[in-house]
Amino acid sequence: MGNTFGHTFRITTWGESHGGGVGVVVDGCPPRLELSETDLQTELDRRRPGQSKIVTQRKESDTAHILSGVFEGRTLGTPISILVWNEDAKPEAYEDFKDKYRPSHADYTFEKKYGIRDHHGGGRASARETIGRVAGGAVAKKILAEQCGVAIAGYVRRIQNISAEVDPSTVRMQQVESNIVRCPDARAAEQMIDLIAQMRKQGDSVGGIIECVARGVPAGLGAPVFDKLEADLAKGVMSIPATKGFEIGSGFAGTEMTGSQHNDPFHARCGKVRTRTNHSGGIQGGISNGEDIVLRVAFKPTATIMMEQDTVDVHGKNVKLKARGRHDPCVLPRAVPIVEAMVALVLVDHYLRQKTVALND
Amino acid sequence: MGNTFGHTFRITTWGESHGGGVGVVVDGCPPRLELSETDLQTELDRRRPGQSKIVTQRKESDTAHILSGVFEGRTLGTPISILVWNEDAKPEAYEDFKDKYRPSHADYTFEKKYGIRDHHGGGRASARETIGRVAGGAVAKKILAEQCGVAIAGYVRRIQNISAEVDPSTVRMQQVESNIVRCPDARAAEQMIDLIAQMRKQGDSVGGIIECVARGVPAGLGAPVFDKLEADLAKGVMSIPATKGFEIGSGFAGTEMTGSQHNDPFHARCGKVRTRTNHSGGIQGGISNGEDIVLRVAFKPTATIMMEQDTVDVHGKNVKLKARGRHDPCVLPRAVPIVEAMVALVLVDHYLRQKTVALND
Amino acid sequence: MGNTFGHTFRITTWGESHGGGVGVVVDGCPPRLELSETDLQTELDRRRPGQSKIVTQRKESDTAHILSGVFEGRTLGTPISILVWNEDAKPEAYEDFKDKYRPSHADYTFEKKYGIRDHHGGGRASARETIGRVAGGAVAKKILAEQCGVAIAGYVRRIQNISAEVDPSTVRMQQVESNIVRCPDARAAEQMIDLIAQMRKQGDSVGGIIECVARGVPAGLGAPVFDKLEADLAKGVMSIPATKGFEIGSGFAGTEMTGSQHNDPFHARCGKVRTRTNHSGGIQGGISNGEDIVLRVAFKPTATIMMEQDTVDVHGKNVKLKARGRHDPCVLPRAVPIVEAMVALVLVDHYLRQKTVALND
Amino acid sequence: MGNTFGHTFRITTWGESHGGGVGVVVDGCPPRLELSETDLQTELDRRRPGQSKIVTQRKESDTAHILSGVFEGRTLGTPISILVWNEDAKPEAYEDFKDKYRPSHADYTFEKKYGIRDHHGGGRASARETIGRVAGGAVAKKILAEQCGVAIAGYVRRIQNISAEVDPSTVRMQQVESNIVRCPDARAAEQMIDLIAQMRKQGDSVGGIIECVARGVPAGLGAPVFDKLEADLAKGVMSIPATKGFEIGSGFAGTEMTGSQHNDPFHARCGKVRTRTNHSGGIQGGISNGEDIVLRVAFKPTATIMMEQDTVDVHGKNVKLKARGRHDPCVLPRAVPIVEAMVALVLVDHYLRQKTVALND
Repeated sequence: MGNTFGHTFRITTWGESHGGGVGVVVDGCPPRLELSETDLQTELDRRRPGQSKIVTQRKESDTAHILSGVFEGRTLGTPISILVWNEDAKPEAYEDFKDKYRPSHADYTFEKKYGIRDHHGGGRASARETIGRVAGGAVAKKILAEQCGVAIAGYVRRIQNISAEVDPSTVRMQQVESNIVRCPDARAAEQMIDLIAQMRKQGDSVGGIIECVARGVPAGLGAPVFDKLEADLAKGVMSIPATKGFEIGSGFAGTEMTGSQHNDPFHARCGKVRTRTNHSGGIQGGISNGEDIVLRVAFKPTATIMMEQDTVDVHGKNVKLKARGRHDPCVLPRAVPIVEAMVALVLVDHYLRQKTVALND
Repeated sequence: MGNTFGHTFRITTWGESHGGGVGVVVDGCPPRLELSETDLQTELDRRRPGQSKIVTQRKESDTAHILSGVFEGRTLGTPISILVWNEDAKPEAYEDFKDKYRPSHADYTFEKKYGIRDHHGGGRASARETIGRVAGGAVAKKILAEQCGVAIAGYVRRIQNISAEVDPSTVRMQQVESNIVRCPDARAAEQMIDLIAQMRKQGDSVGGIIECVARGVPAGLGAPVFDKLEADLAKGVMSIPATKGFEIGSGFAGTEMTGSQHNDPFHARCGKVRTRTNHSGGIQGGISNGEDIVLRVAFKPTATIMMEQDTVDVHGKNVKLKARGRHDPCVLPRAVPIVEAMVALVLVDHYLRQKTVALND
Repeated sequence: MGNTFGHTFRITTWGESHGGGVGVVVDGCPPRLELSETDLQTELDRRRPGQSKIVTQRKESDTAHILSGVFEGRTLGTPISILVWNEDAKPEAYEDFKDKYRPSHADYTFEKKYGIRDHHGGGRASARETIGRVAGGAVAKKILAEQCGVAIAGYVRRIQNISAEVDPSTVRMQQVESNIVRCPDARAAEQMIDLIAQMRKQGDSVGGIIECVARGVPAGLGAPVFDKLEADLAKGVMSIPATKGFEIGSGFAGTEMTGSQHNDPFHARCGKVRTRTNHSGGIQGGISNGEDIVLRVAFKPTATIMMEQDTVDVHGKNVKLKARGRHDPCVLPRAVPIVEAMVALVLVDHYLRQKTVALND
Repeated sequence: MGNTFGHTFRITTWGESHGGGVGVVVDGCPPRLELSETDLQTELDRRRPGQSKIVTQRKESDTAHILSGVFEGRTLGTPISILVWNEDAKPEAYEDFKDKYRPSHADYTFEKKYGIRDHHGGGRASARETIGRVAGGAVAKKILAEQCGVAIAGYVRRIQNISAEVDPSTVRMQQVESNIVRCPDARAAEQMIDLIAQMRKQGDSVGGIIECVARGVPAGLGAPVFDKLEADLAKGVMSIPATKGFEIGSGFAGTEMTGSQHNDPFHARCGKVRTRTNHSGGIQGGISNGEDIVLRVAFKPTATIMMEQDTVDVHGKNVKLKARGRHDPCVLPRAVPIVEAMVALVLVDHYLRQKTVALND
């Protein structure tokens, strides 16, 4: 259980970090959508290890193979199976962790849950699992863009205490992709890159905040009770490894305002109902109102650090542990496309569900 | 769709604010649990309108009627249908909103989604829907307490910029319930009550942060990928009306730490594997580690205020609107049992699911 | 679990035979559909006990109360909660069964599953649960009729070895409802009524076959793999109490034909693709082809008989048991609307799901 | 949607007949089960084309590759991804069907549903999809056998009008596998083989009935309402291509009995509650009673025949069509392991779900 996400547009991911490969089955994709492996690869390359000096140096091409569901360049409406082989698994780097629980990793909790675990690279708990999400998200993004003009842009908003100045309503993908940390504020980006490089040298790590905006979302997506759009977005992004918090619109800061300050007054603009402010973050009562959907996700500093740490072994003995091998001193640059993917998956699911909420008048 | 929450332990809520009543069907409750209407009433009374001077004065007894699933005081394993009649509906107070969209309410988005809405008290978007959650949560709490010794305590951590000093690992229910704002820090509670009373007088509103702790959760609950425990908790609490943010453990503040500061070192204590710090908030890799689960939820200031506001009517004309009638100047005191209910619902679902992850050795 | 049926259009039923009442929550109903309690009552009256001399004489008005989801005569798109009070429960008639397992009833299996059971009238296993299905099915029928012109007609095809002559493609509701056994072949109907009356006198019971036809189903509903239309129909009708078999189109008889006899040749008629024969029963590869959907359901003779039977008590002792009280010597006349309801529920679910299988060209 | 089966133990299949390959993701398998590719291959070989002279001669090794979820020979509790490459696709044999709808195939209905189809070998509608079911079923069978001693045996009960004499309570796997038609009655088997060989020569096809028995199923599996064990079994087997009917226990024949003949009297035997007869087919009120579960499935004659047939082309013109290439003149011998797989998948799902229906006393 728990390896499927979505109701109408569903992805099921599989794979361990050091097993044969990883992949995803996308079910519920509408038929006749043009789709190629290139569409997937563009997104996977943004998530790929080894893409820059500030990320892990594991060498994976992360090449997407579409095994089903696409015929003569178009989707069939049947499940799309996507496979990525593991190419640079180095299980030997993890032998020391076979008997020791890495602090703030999932080693101990997997052991308690399953009574067995693949200790190589975290096994199923590895962020390598997110390849399937990004591939599925690429399909979702394509549907959203082509069918209702939705554009999704994620970017690094903060690394540790370096904050970027960004206007979510105008930020452009090109700005985000113009530097290796994926922060559209060039000045802040430089500082962030320096900080991450320094952390790598120290064998330590940092976290930060990713912001993501979805523009062009039609009003009416979502649901009023449990499947509120913000609830599904929260679940989606909080299922990404290393996340510790989620907020939408005004978020935690909004709790310091009064109602008269926080309410978004409606006004008519160009024949449309719009709001003057967007503290709501594009969602009211669980349903999109047509304004930009803006959310933020907190990522903790990477748990893998190259420093000696106290821990316990599988026999319950206090021991010392020191990681070796490859790791990301900061996960945020590679997490940007993952956040976008989860946002896209939630939106496309609600977009398709909304089609069932209509009578033939 | 969207009115059911949970996989193995599931609740389906129904009802509009000013319709016949509201209720819930609880499915998947184990058989032979002692259960009475009193068990439900205790929790419903904490959520009830009119319970103090700082909440809405709508007069509802919110009496729970169990219509099925309980036989001679014990659950049958069949669906438990719980009904609460609406007693003090005042639809006339809402006639002015029939044609005007209240700012930061769900009026406009419901209209866009469904092309129809019950404008009385928000209809389905009313927080009255949460009665079903609290009733279902009361059943969940009982199972957790009796079957695995889990205790859940929510409380107000902050109102606007008044913060309470609370230690989640020792806070007691009695402290929380000792004042009408449900804040265990008596000094802060007093200031909060004053602030809310003042807001009511001004016709304005405030928001804040509720913190919730679950103690005694066994290690091993949750799932590694999409159904991570924190992801399901995020979805659960972000589906509560008026929420804008969620965080677990170190949350957003944790993004300012380095990995070496943030990691929770394991150590052996009394034959158990424990962590020295709890930045993880009791969950690692989506699975509980046996430490306290600590989360925080941001609530925006109530959208209903007694001041004139700009808005648009259903014909797209710019108009003025002023609310009348009863409302909460601050939803947090009544939201505490709702947060607890959602946390309990998520935990009991994962508790029951964990039973399927076991071989007969 | 297991009290919800459907994916997009979902019903959740609740209630025990001798508890407070029975009901259903309908979720996923499109908004703005005209709906009244009368729409439900028409169908419930066809299922009602006491409607004729050949059914059980339990006195229930089975009056449907809509508690939510309908506003000024139209659906809101929110859950429709429907409640029917139990009026003529006679728990005392069942005291003898408290400790004895009635043969071919669910008493023993409930005990093994739950370790507890409500022995009054079968509790949750009572056919009284089907009230919720019929009420939900009434909503489904209305959508199908109004939105895509589908008409569903069920009727008794055989009682024990009395078979009716019926042409599914032309049978009319009026013929079915013209006699108390719901068999459109008047001559056979008379014999069936006599047989059932005689069985009642003997304290014995009979079963038979209900046939159901859905006309006007658009081509394209269903799914190619697990959610084949015939698979969902099979699940739907086989979840009705007392069913032992299901067949579609040629069914079991079709196994005696060769492929060249069984295949339904396509031909063009009035600009449409039609089949000359309909051995397929309106479904090919799990998807409707626009021809009549024709299915048959086998019902066993009622398990409750007024004769002494061998059985075992809860202590494992061999004992004798003799039923008292009210019962149906043949369930088929009252089961006709239940079969129709399940067929309608499956079709409306696939009808709504099909809306998600479309690109905006 | 629709490519996933099961709730707690779930399989998601993917793949087209002439695409890259076919496969399945198994989710919810308990951890620490010994599992190898050989366990899967044993079952896949029983379903494989080319296994005898009476089945299709397409040359596929159908070799199972486990890509995830198994570590050092044991399951991890994470998704098990299984891949089988397509080796002998001959798309050119299907060029004639690109524009013509094969009678009683899914060509026309796919076109109506999706507006696109892969015309090579039926694409997703091909029985090749069932490879994923058989692989998933092999895992299910292993759990059932090791964890609760359940043994499942399917066999051909009838081909056209040649019926076998079989006692479901004693039939042995070895008898079934002793001949190529998988009928444990050696005399009938011979006649069946002759009939199928003759049909192949004529270019025609035949259908028949497969019976399947599950022995050792513990009492208490199933659910009382929609997820009745027989309902889920019906859905499972009716989702297999070419099925037209399902019956359990006495089935359609049982409708000719009276209640006093049909009821299964309980009696105490060796300290257990047993029934004297088994007209119930091992299930009462949707829940297993510990007796053998016995069901039958009707398969129509194969739609692919080597004779000229009337049909319509994609332009709506009446045309003639004649199949070429490889096909099964009778699907039953290869369908036996598929029926068993679906039965195993349903039983293991309910077996795991039953674990959640228990209090810690």
